[in-house]
Amino acid sequence: MSQELGITARKDKNTDEWYTQAVTKTGLADYGPVKGTMIVKPYGMKIWENIKSKYQDMIEDEVENAYFPLFIPQRLLDKEEEVVDGFGAEVAYVEDGKQKDIDEKVALRPTSESIITEFFSEEIRSHRQLPYRINQWANVVRWEVSDTNPFLRTREFLWQEGHTVHENSEKADKEAKKRLDQYSRLVEEELAIPTLKGYKPKHDKFPGADHTYTVETLMPDGKSVQSATSHNLGEHFSKAFDITFEDTESKQKTPSTTSWGLSTRVIGALILAHGDDKGLRLPPKIAPIQTVIVPIKAEDENKVTETVNAVSQKLEQSGISAKIDDREHRTPGYKFNEWEMKGVPLRIEIGPEEAKTGKLTVYRRDKDSKTEIETSSTSDRIQELLDNVQNSLYSERDAYLQENIREAQSKSEILQTIGSSRGYVRAQWCGNQECEQEIKSKVSAEIVILPEREGSKPESKRNEQENNAECAICGETSVTKAYFAKNY
Amino acid sequence: MSQELGITARKDKNTDEWYTQAVTKTGLADYGPVKGTMIVKPYGMKIWENIKSKYQDMIEDEVENAYFPLFIPQRLLDKEEEVVDGFGAEVAYVEDGKQKDIDEKVALRPTSESIITEFFSEEIRSHRQLPYRINQWANVVRWEVSDTNPFLRTREFLWQEGHTVHENSEKADKEAKKRLDQYSRLVEEELAIPTLKGYKPKHDKFPGADHTYTVETLMPDGKSVQSATSHNLGEHFSKAFDITFEDTESKQKTPSTTSWGLSTRVIGALILAHGDDKGLRLPPKIAPIQTVIVPIKAEDENKVTETVNAVSQKLEQSGISAKIDDREHRTPGYKFNEWEMKGVPLRIEIGPEEAKTGKLTVYRRDKDSKTEIETSSTSDRIQELLDNVQNSLYSERDAYLQENIREAQSKSEILQTIGSSRGYVRAQWCGNQECEQEIKSKVSAEIVILPEREGSKPESKRNEQENNAECAICGETSVTKAYFAKNY
Repeated sequence: MSQELGITARKDKNTDEWYTQAVTKTGLADYGPVKGTMIVKPYGMKIWENIKSKYQDMIEDEVENAYFPLFIPQRLLDKEEEVVDGFGAEVAYVEDGKQKDIDEKVALRPTSESIITEFFSEEIRSHRQLPYRINQWANVVRWEVSDTNPFLRTREFLWQEGHTVHENSEKADKEAKKRLDQYSRLVEEELAIPTLKGYKPKHDKFPGADHTYTVETLMPDGKSVQSATSHNLGEHFSKAFDITFEDTESKQKTPSTTSWGLSTRVIGALILAHGDDKGLRLPPKIAPIQTVIVPIKAEDENKVTETVNAVSQKLEQSGISAKIDDREHRTPGYKFNEWEMKGVPLRIEIGPEEAKTGKLTVYRRDKDSKTEIETSSTSDRIQELLDNVQNSLYSERDAYLQENIREAQSKSEILQTIGSSRGYVRAQWCGNQECEQEIKSKVSAEIVILPEREGSKPESKRNEQENNAECAICGETSVTKAYFAKNY
Repeated sequence: MSQELGITARKDKNTDEWYTQAVTKTGLADYGPVKGTMIVKPYGMKIWENIKSKYQDMIEDEVENAYFPLFIPQRLLDKEEEVVDGFGAEVAYVEDGKQKDIDEKVALRPTSESIITEFFSEEIRSHRQLPYRINQWANVVRWEVSDTNPFLRTREFLWQEGHTVHENSEKADKEAKKRLDQYSRLVEEELAIPTLKGYKPKHDKFPGADHTYTVETLMPDGKSVQSATSHNLGEHFSKAFDITFEDTESKQKTPSTTSWGLSTRVIGALILAHGDDKGLRLPPKIAPIQTVIVPIKAEDENKVTETVNAVSQKLEQSGISAKIDDREHRTPGYKFNEWEMKGVPLRIEIGPEEAKTGKLTVYRRDKDSKTEIETSSTSDRIQELLDNVQNSLYSERDAYLQENIREAQSKSEILQTIGSSRGYVRAQWCGNQECEQEIKSKVSAEIVILPEREGSKPESKRNEQENNAECAICGETSVTKAYFAKNY
């Protein structure tokens, strides 16, 4: 691989350009012909399929998959006013063409609460059907007009959206928190990115939700990425769509609903979190290829091929994905560079020496280092190394996250800390959007997460100090701490 | 289940109404709020997921999944003129709203040849990359204005579309036929529906294709359903999108491409093929639930529950899906009717008698009959019964298909046979669309499949009789036999 085929931008100096190259040159995705759209290429799709499969396993026993139409009549969107206001300009519509037999305005789903809640109102009659849980894997359309970027923000993306119905708001809240915990677990354990879990401020919650929960992840450039969200929608949607159920005492009640989503955006976080100047570094648990084997055929070609096949077979038998790169028209050096750029966790080089001695050289992408292992214990040692890579990527990010949560006591301290360092600044906050605005207007950082709901902690549980806490910005009584950060 | 909850239409008397009830009352699907759209409910989705998984296994080792945008610029559709003409009125567009930053006409994919061939033209440089194979599982939009019906014809449906690039048309043709064979195998072995494989007449092939291959299945009402298609696109798209590759002698060549698709339509065929007046009859290999266990709790409740759990566990351990229906507020009779309507292949009833004697009564949905089995050999016997059901459903359909292919020697014989019987009428045909039109205008039957390409058999391989064959309609020289049928 010649230099221009590799990544030429420095990740810390020019993150935007680095990101573009890390997406396109590695074969994850490409730009679609319509502005703001993306083509998810096979390498990127395999990552999404791996994430899907891990997540599907998490929800399988409780949630059933379904598929709802892409097309949502405007009259359904109109039923929940906050949603109409919240998504407004981002909603795309089907053109009312000649002979199209369209007698109403038809939107392309920006999200499916409206159409699914309408469905619930037809389906649900009795407490016996509750909790009722539906999920769909689908594409979704939000016609962003600026700042689109593959995976992170595109006009069409892939996601799962879960929708549930419960007897009351407490149960809905428990559901929303459970799904948040699952997202956090998925992102931490499979994608090796530590998370912060918490609430969105009231003014930033999902339109029509009682509470919005978020999983935030910190990127090396110091910005936060919202990696998944879950919403306790309370009775907002149930009332708007007139869902009722008969409770155990034959009384008609209004249920509470939730919704929760995880999208291809999380792949953007994955790229940013672990990548380095050479390209991607993929966590083994979701890597499309866990080990690449590069044969070095100088002499003893048969013996080398034999060893390569034996090693590959052993790995596959142990459930480790192994790809043999036997392209004749590429040099080993080219192959090394390419697979390093594509972030394959481990590389095994097998030449005449390895075939003879039974010792294998293993290159570890995350540490850019080499180890020797015996062929006799290949699978165990490779699995061990893969586990190490997974854990090491997580630890690296976790140390970074812990280092980059800072406290601030005043407005000037917030501004100065955000201006001079990366990550989150934690400060007392009165719950007032204007105070956030004061920060936002100066350093384009905002409140990305609250560790607890505004004023949710009962008086009795607060300690002396917290009771007297004042908003770091305006000095009024604080309702919670808040995490300020720049974000994607 | 009271009578009105069950299916009230007779399948053979009123197929349309029967079909609607078989789709909606069984929980397969429902109508979406926008006309012509459908909600695929969990029971239907599970069938689609099972079909997906079986098909994915078939192509996995050769084909990589990707995802291309829903949004296709008109300029790309315009590149292949036949496609524009072919899909014309069915293409839906995004409304050019205010502030939407749209400077061109944007279509919702009716199929993805255009956007994917454009991608190929960027990706493909060398013979080393060929064959190049991509598949996507996606939704697709065809704005039908009449005759929509869940699964069979909807404005949005789910499908897979495979797209491949080959060095020449021969290799592309081999690919298209290979995919057709896979579709046929899938439909026959998993869905238990026998198929006819062959060509579409030239005038009915996919716009821009050299040859279109089709898998046809015969429904009990005598109509044919196209269950999957594959196309050898020759150089049409490669030329329109200017794909070239360097061959082994460093010459620039134009490759040939193929595309092939299987959609949720096949579920429509599944419902129609096997259903009866009671509802669905699902082939065990793709049934969401293979066995339902209904506890009859009169006395000895603990003993019954114990037996139910033991049987369920045994089945699950053998990889047989088993659902225990222990709803307290429903009678066994209600449950029997419901699961029969939903087409679960086997039902096991377990009451005090069964718990005591160790003999189980198994109800077989396809034959509407009961068998006794010993609990000691539950899994083996149940698996045997499931295999029997699968084979028996297939044989029933196969006998029906064989009985319903009739020969005709003249126009009047074709018309009379179609008018008086179900299924296919096979007749010699000159290759002229006008001759088909003569039939179509009188009995709304058309040529649905050709056993061989028009005039493709070399002179030397034809026998005396065939050489002298004349078109049954106009009397001119025949180029092939053709299957006439009414179709969906």
